[in-house]
Amino acid sequence: MTPVTNGPTRKLLVERRDRHGWHRTPDEVVVEEPLEIRLDDVLVATTMRTPGQDFELAAGFCHAEGWLEGTSVGTIRYCATGPALESDFNVVTVETGGTGPEPTPRVGTVTSSCGLCGSLAIDALLQRLTVLGASGRFALDVLVGVPERVRSSQVTFDRTGGLHAAAAFDQRGELLVVREDIGRHNAVDKAVGRLLLDGALPATGLGLFVSGRASFELVTKAWAAGFGVLVAVSAPSSLAVDAARQAGMTLVGFARGDELNVYSGSIER
Amino acid sequence: MTPVTNGPTRKLLVERRDRHGWHRTPDEVVVEEPLEIRLDDVLVATTMRTPGQDFELAAGFCHAEGWLEGTSVGTIRYCATGPALESDFNVVTVETGGTGPEPTPRVGTVTSSCGLCGSLAIDALLQRLTVLGASGRFALDVLVGVPERVRSSQVTFDRTGGLHAAAAFDQRGELLVVREDIGRHNAVDKAVGRLLLDGALPATGLGLFVSGRASFELVTKAWAAGFGVLVAVSAPSSLAVDAARQAGMTLVGFARGDELNVYSGSIER
Repeated sequence: MTPVTNGPTRKLLVERRDRHGWHRTPDEVVVEEPLEIRLDDVLVATTMRTPGQDFELAAGFCHAEGWLEGTSVGTIRYCATGPALESDFNVVTVETGGTGPEPTPRVGTVTSSCGLCGSLAIDALLQRLTVLGASGRFALDVLVGVPERVRSSQVTFDRTGGLHAAAAFDQRGELLVVREDIGRHNAVDKAVGRLLLDGALPATGLGLFVSGRASFELVTKAWAAGFGVLVAVSAPSSLAVDAARQAGMTLVGFARGDELNVYSGSIER
Repeated sequence: MTPVTNGPTRKLLVERRDRHGWHRTPDEVVVEEPLEIRLDDVLVATTMRTPGQDFELAAGFCHAEGWLEGTSVGTIRYCATGPALESDFNVVTVETGGTGPEPTPRVGTVTSSCGLCGSLAIDALLQRLTVLGASGRFALDVLVGVPERVRSSQVTFDRTGGLHAAAAFDQRGELLVVREDIGRHNAVDKAVGRLLLDGALPATGLGLFVSGRASFELVTKAWAAGFGVLVAVSAPSSLAVDAARQAGMTLVGFARGDELNVYSGSIER
């Protein structure tokens, strides 16, 4: 039986009001569906994602959480018990033979203890992740070209206006992988998952691009994957800047046209 | 002792490249800090939020999850054991005297079971929430004015470019409450929490505005609060449209200038 996953967009009719008045017109919306991620049959997360590259998403997510430390990914599969329903393609199991660290599903967005604050969250990351080494030499004229390059390779964005993109790029600005999702974090997990499955992690000497803002979570994911540079089209948060500085990561925000801000680290001018 | 919570923004120096070349300049970033939400001392969620209106956020979140059904909020307080540290203001406890339903913290974003799909997620909501009744009469010329009205009352956005806004408005377009946060869902929880603490729920006859996209989660929160109309500046997702149609909610997307799309329900033309 051929898996029939949901597509990334869906067409529907809307009532549109524009300068020509009211009209009933077809519109295309980005698909949002829950994906359950299981690690060796333990439910570790449910994320609202855009269907597509689900195996990469599951692998990238587990990697970012540190659950693949010292182990390797065996099979990744959709839920395949019983007759194949559409919902079977909303459950993905990552199999490691139980050889990795025991996963601790997060309540909300971060593992927590009484009195957690941003600097403690960064301290916890420092215990798990090493400070990044030399990130390679990324030149200004390469970095300013990345957003437009990604934009022109985003196939779905133009039609729905609802998708985020993440991309891995090298020091010449060549894109290695571009992934889209309704969630920025999912797009990053998909891009990182692709590199993981290709045996291309850690992403030493590569940069990561995100089409929206840079949150603490995105810096964490970039750090866990080994990217020395993170480029965001929009604003970083305070904790994203703090984490990038602790990680030794170059953090670029508001990368638009030939302008940008460097919040952490440095680039070749 | 006076609680000293973190502010919503923080200043730092960045290296900026613009058309005048490189310069070192002050920049203001939106603060992101973890907030632990406890319900009667059970940790139910940790969310990355912008400090401010934390009690509203905690109350609004618990309400949206259905954990305040048949009970009322007693005290809401910061973690106050031991000496007051900055991190004490990252823990909020909502007290109901244990009279509400037992909270089931979510793994990831939605409660899950094998084979969850979008329509099952909506079915689960239909078991908990009633279909909305008459939503009042929202006129086109009122709705198209709401985004600019909210925009001009967003104090922090202009400085950081990193905040989302949520607002409750009435049928004349008057804003009852405007809240900002790095996360759209938090901004909605804060706005709903304010209404809850004011005894103004369900929000029958009111509309909810969000400055970004309309996800399934946002429709769920609007539904749980009783808003008949949800207006988003950007795109809705497929599941957001499905949920709004099931809820009997009017869903407006791409509300920009005097243009908009109606994805569910109808408005007065």
